[in-house]
Amino acid sequence: MTGPVESCRIDIRVRYAETDAMGYLHHAQYLVYFEMGRTELLRLNRACYRDMEERGVFYVVARLECRYRAAARYDDLLTLTTTTERLTPVRVEHSYRLARGVQLLTEARSTLVAVGREGRPQPLPDDLYKEMSGVTRPQPVG
Amino acid sequence: MTGPVESCRIDIRVRYAETDAMGYLHHAQYLVYFEMGRTELLRLNRACYRDMEERGVFYVVARLECRYRAAARYDDLLTLTTTTERLTPVRVEHSYRLARGVQLLTEARSTLVAVGREGRPQPLPDDLYKEMSGVTRPQPVG
Amino acid sequence: MTGPVESCRIDIRVRYAETDAMGYLHHAQYLVYFEMGRTELLRLNRACYRDMEERGVFYVVARLECRYRAAARYDDLLTLTTTTERLTPVRVEHSYRLARGVQLLTEARSTLVAVGREGRPQPLPDDLYKEMSGVTRPQPVG
Amino acid sequence: MTGPVESCRIDIRVRYAETDAMGYLHHAQYLVYFEMGRTELLRLNRACYRDMEERGVFYVVARLECRYRAAARYDDLLTLTTTTERLTPVRVEHSYRLARGVQLLTEARSTLVAVGREGRPQPLPDDLYKEMSGVTRPQPVG
Repeated sequence: MTGPVESCRIDIRVRYAETDAMGYLHHAQYLVYFEMGRTELLRLNRACYRDMEERGVFYVVARLECRYRAAARYDDLLTLTTTTERLTPVRVEHSYRLARGVQLLTEARSTLVAVGREGRPQPLPDDLYKEMSGVTRPQPVG
Repeated sequence: MTGPVESCRIDIRVRYAETDAMGYLHHAQYLVYFEMGRTELLRLNRACYRDMEERGVFYVVARLECRYRAAARYDDLLTLTTTTERLTPVRVEHSYRLARGVQLLTEARSTLVAVGREGRPQPLPDDLYKEMSGVTRPQPVG
Repeated sequence: MTGPVESCRIDIRVRYAETDAMGYLHHAQYLVYFEMGRTELLRLNRACYRDMEERGVFYVVARLECRYRAAARYDDLLTLTTTTERLTPVRVEHSYRLARGVQLLTEARSTLVAVGREGRPQPLPDDLYKEMSGVTRPQPVG
Repeated sequence: MTGPVESCRIDIRVRYAETDAMGYLHHAQYLVYFEMGRTELLRLNRACYRDMEERGVFYVVARLECRYRAAARYDDLLTLTTTTERLTPVRVEHSYRLARGVQLLTEARSTLVAVGREGRPQPLPDDLYKEMSGVTRPQPVG
């Protein structure tokens, strides 16, 4: 039996529309890339985010921190590594490293909270949490 | 009794994030501006698009044509004129003129179709159509 | 000797950030996809758009027409076919077909104009035009 | 003589294109709003960012931290308060508070670094720093 996939790498090519007048990838766009990384990491753990939303399970971003170390440009081919740092039934922390070849461009970290359709915090359903964590949620004893 | 407001003007300042590496407002962003024009034109006719969606009435873009004549740059203050060219219970045609002072930058035209929650064409409810058109929908005779 | 590549297909997965409150891919986002198609079509003809800009050769969109036939949703995997319909040293016309499997979602057509750094129309350099068209530009006859 | 303006408030209406399939303002979009706040704060201090860039003075985002407390929706009218927390010739720290009426939605903080055309750190020109800080840069003594 294998545990959950904790990290994944995806390649992303910078689109022209994502650059700004300075010629760089706009700093807000990195957050869109991080979201792509989370989508693929979920997919590797057999949890499709689209299916989650259809079941009424949503993740909202509660906190995000990003350090921009070097700029990216149009048509650059970047590699994003997304890692689950901590997962509980109600929240998940990820870290991100975006690089061009061996050069690190950006490091970031986010906290997401699981919510229901009305936007209120709500733990993940057991089966989903199990898939994502490789761990059954502790059951009350006795 | 007054008829519907058929045209409205709004001012829009070009945001940095909306420019591209060429230093111009990106051509896809104009469509976002046109949508803002439609929102304000609806509001002037006492029909808030957010309320429409809460009633299960949606507009989807079916056709769009745009001619780009001159470029806009970061921090330009632009004026968008949005005009209803034709309105029926199932579709609406708008025209758009985006200018910087007296200089015309872009002309466009769109057709939107009214749909229900499932995305299938569905005529506007009578009261809404009346507000937007200033005209009661023709009733079957006899 | 081979002629130019006139058409190319790329796969694009719809990002969460590209959807709107209706749950659909936002209609402005299609233009960003079309631009990606042009980038890849240029690359297949050994003309990298980034290199073009570094030489002071730019393409600006002069006209765009789009027909939206069916909606796309988050995480859909789409196929975009981009075709060069007509190429001269000063302008290029493309057509686009965006599909999900066998279902056609959108058809579009654009005209781009070659400009210099100051944004004024300027024919493509001969070598570039030759690469892109597979045809040497007609020379004045002595 | 008056010191610099250290804080400013702007109103921002959430655009349809800025929402996502969950119906909320997308979390990356907040960074675009913060940039708008900085633009207006510079303008109040008679330093237009567009003019700065024409002089070869750029600000790049080096660090950003954001806490999302409550969601915004399409057509919400929000108020963004942008405050300069610390300014030196080479960097500036801002804080942001985005609210809908009395409800705080988001708090954030950013660090920007002044760079030249090549993207390397470079102190602000004296006249610009003076305008922005209300303080002349310390001169070497003796």
